[in-house]
Amino acid sequence: MDLNVDMGESFGRYKLGQDEEVMKYITSANIACGFHAGDPQVMHETVQLAKKYDVAVGAHVGLPDLRGFGRRRMDITPEELKTDTLYQLGALDAFLKAHSMKMQHVKPHGVLYRMVSEEEKYAEAFLEAVKLFNPELYIFIPKGTLIWDRGADLGFKMAAEVLVDLSYDDQGNWVLERKKKAWSPEEVAQRAVMVARDKQITTIGGKKIDIEADTICCHGDSPNAVEVVKKIKEEFERLGIPLCKISASK
Amino acid sequence: MDLNVDMGESFGRYKLGQDEEVMKYITSANIACGFHAGDPQVMHETVQLAKKYDVAVGAHVGLPDLRGFGRRRMDITPEELKTDTLYQLGALDAFLKAHSMKMQHVKPHGVLYRMVSEEEKYAEAFLEAVKLFNPELYIFIPKGTLIWDRGADLGFKMAAEVLVDLSYDDQGNWVLERKKKAWSPEEVAQRAVMVARDKQITTIGGKKIDIEADTICCHGDSPNAVEVVKKIKEEFERLGIPLCKISASK
Amino acid sequence: MDLNVDMGESFGRYKLGQDEEVMKYITSANIACGFHAGDPQVMHETVQLAKKYDVAVGAHVGLPDLRGFGRRRMDITPEELKTDTLYQLGALDAFLKAHSMKMQHVKPHGVLYRMVSEEEKYAEAFLEAVKLFNPELYIFIPKGTLIWDRGADLGFKMAAEVLVDLSYDDQGNWVLERKKKAWSPEEVAQRAVMVARDKQITTIGGKKIDIEADTICCHGDSPNAVEVVKKIKEEFERLGIPLCKISASK
Amino acid sequence: MDLNVDMGESFGRYKLGQDEEVMKYITSANIACGFHAGDPQVMHETVQLAKKYDVAVGAHVGLPDLRGFGRRRMDITPEELKTDTLYQLGALDAFLKAHSMKMQHVKPHGVLYRMVSEEEKYAEAFLEAVKLFNPELYIFIPKGTLIWDRGADLGFKMAAEVLVDLSYDDQGNWVLERKKKAWSPEEVAQRAVMVARDKQITTIGGKKIDIEADTICCHGDSPNAVEVVKKIKEEFERLGIPLCKISASK
Repeated sequence: MDLNVDMGESFGRYKLGQDEEVMKYITSANIACGFHAGDPQVMHETVQLAKKYDVAVGAHVGLPDLRGFGRRRMDITPEELKTDTLYQLGALDAFLKAHSMKMQHVKPHGVLYRMVSEEEKYAEAFLEAVKLFNPELYIFIPKGTLIWDRGADLGFKMAAEVLVDLSYDDQGNWVLERKKKAWSPEEVAQRAVMVARDKQITTIGGKKIDIEADTICCHGDSPNAVEVVKKIKEEFERLGIPLCKISASK
Repeated sequence: MDLNVDMGESFGRYKLGQDEEVMKYITSANIACGFHAGDPQVMHETVQLAKKYDVAVGAHVGLPDLRGFGRRRMDITPEELKTDTLYQLGALDAFLKAHSMKMQHVKPHGVLYRMVSEEEKYAEAFLEAVKLFNPELYIFIPKGTLIWDRGADLGFKMAAEVLVDLSYDDQGNWVLERKKKAWSPEEVAQRAVMVARDKQITTIGGKKIDIEADTICCHGDSPNAVEVVKKIKEEFERLGIPLCKISASK
Repeated sequence: MDLNVDMGESFGRYKLGQDEEVMKYITSANIACGFHAGDPQVMHETVQLAKKYDVAVGAHVGLPDLRGFGRRRMDITPEELKTDTLYQLGALDAFLKAHSMKMQHVKPHGVLYRMVSEEEKYAEAFLEAVKLFNPELYIFIPKGTLIWDRGADLGFKMAAEVLVDLSYDDQGNWVLERKKKAWSPEEVAQRAVMVARDKQITTIGGKKIDIEADTICCHGDSPNAVEVVKKIKEEFERLGIPLCKISASK
Repeated sequence: MDLNVDMGESFGRYKLGQDEEVMKYITSANIACGFHAGDPQVMHETVQLAKKYDVAVGAHVGLPDLRGFGRRRMDITPEELKTDTLYQLGALDAFLKAHSMKMQHVKPHGVLYRMVSEEEKYAEAFLEAVKLFNPELYIFIPKGTLIWDRGADLGFKMAAEVLVDLSYDDQGNWVLERKKKAWSPEEVAQRAVMVARDKQITTIGGKKIDIEADTICCHGDSPNAVEVVKKIKEEFERLGIPLCKISASK
């Protein structure tokens, strides 16, 4: 199982997340590319941290809306999404190149995660950008979404993602919250174990539903992010569930 | 001789330059990378135009100041310049990759052109970014500047640039004007010929001074840019001075 | 009848519209406030032009999206709309204050025009901002929209607007186009006369439908904007239909 | 003596400072206006906090550089400074108007503080903006600077400011640091008392020099800002030195 966290979300004077502390416990980092968060210096520093802790790097591609943190839906055109995605992939890649690293994956951020999951025109534009830039990139997205099905059909490397610190409804859909609920590290670790071992998750309604994961995501901007990922890593080690970057396991 | 023009300076609703018309007559295009001008969709379209007309592409790297069009000096740190440059190089490269093209050169834009020409800390930061990204890129900059000397010493591929539609003082320095003087196409073509054939340029003071050029630059945002580059091409053809992209001639 | 045009849509190096030429023929100017277009220096210059030609000034309030020119719907919260509107109203007012002028009206720009017309939460947020800033402002919006009805009920000064250089469908709704159709000045003037004199407009489908206007709008960023407003003014003078700012007529 | 702190420096998802906690102990708040920090919603909330705790409000005017937090010098033109200042003053005023409050003062932020202090063209542009917007505003700036002398001559309401949590050299100049030194609350309170009671401050070199203050500034983005202002207030109360907003005392 891969464990990914959003990284590099600081911007100039504004600090967000405890990237170095979190980096110690995870296997993949989704690095913001300057549209919804991050700036070139932050990206550079975050790539260096990933290298230091042998964490695989992916591009966390977002809408061009720093103030809304990429969480406000914008009716961009598919062509805008395609070119915005290419731009962000390339920008991050420059920092990887500078450190002789390779990009492992790409993941849409915030409301874009939902837009490509549900709307054909955006799913296609996003896949087109990945194809043009590097079709070997893993795409982190929940199984069963529109883009998953489309991508799998076309031969993209899809990696099923479960967001263990977000709530799910009984239909298996996660719920976007502007203000994150602060789960206890134990709760999140327990959910992660259930996802990895039992392929199940507990919904808001208290039901257990089936879910499939190649990679588990925790959010790095929650106040207790460090404890959460530390706890997950400890629990996985205790139970003998291996954690490793997706490019090493698939 | 190479003939380069700044391209891709439009932004969203705002159109600047007549890129397709100009592209027909030039050999190298400096494409804005979204900091002082340009946006991802504009970059994509401009790269496609360059491909269509077999024009070599370089990154036109600028300060993060759209409103000031990269012409207002900002006291950024060398680290900021290095990472801003990497970011822009990578962003443009994504569009080249998407069209199986290779980046030929890099050129600092506006006041950054002067900052790296005159200040050691910025010259070094800029060269460091080029080295980390791709040391094979040509760097377009006037011969005799601080960055030229430093870059040549370190083995970078320096390409001597002369700005034939800007004014030069008697010391051989060009003068930055917020509002461009509108030279007649004949005047600019005459200056270009003098640079290419006689290795000389006429200064504001009326003096002829020696100047060396691998590439000649005209500005694409002047009202008569199309006529200017057309006239240069015609004059060069008439006089048998070959025009070709720098990567093909050196 | 009042004749209003969007003004002050330039941004830094990017020029849009022929503001001084257009200003000579109109009675009200909607000045962009730096969110979808415009910058402080442009706002200042546009206010000075309005003063020079005795044109009434209103705030053209837009979404925070320069690249999309305020034409890409963003799912902002009503609180964000309220505070963004207050911010823009205040910013423009500073330039009016500097020239001892009073703001006459406010008008939502681009897709925001539609958002407040159709969605209750946005209509209410917009009205709330106007109430808090200055309830004496005229609000330019088509009659019959949700915000018109709500505003009229609450005692706001509603001014019915018809967009004579946009297309209308048979239901009386205008159609937003990213790329404007270039109407001939005669066509637009004819439509304007029909609206002012006959209270009717011709739809895309060729039907004549009833429509009510206190103010007529033409777009300042069309290539022939000057000829259009000149022609309207000439036709109105020829036919004896008085043109004057809304604050002078109501 | 007035005690002022920078407030409203959060931006979207990015939180900076503990505004409500700090607000309890101060008499004047300098609210960021969206250029170097702050956004409309943050401005609105901060104005509401100021009202709640009966704190006077001023505009904290900055360079248009969010990423650099207004701390990177930009060579803007005086006209740009004048119009940027007008814009920010107006924007903040809208939120004060919405709560029936009056703006008390204006203060340049970050490197702009130094630019107007030392350079005639910027001092004049800044004063011109204040005159055009509201010449009754107090201007917070150190006594003895170029803008102080110019402003005092022209009859502006100058309020001498001392930055008690910054270092001073032996010539009485404060030193701008990108990363703030974390003074202990006791140290800062002791410095504040010395300024208020003895009209003296201790320099980096350990010298005591004379200094004059109408208002004392502490920075709200230091980690212990709350303890610092609390300690100052306690010390002033213990020693019987009155704290009140500048508009009430002068």
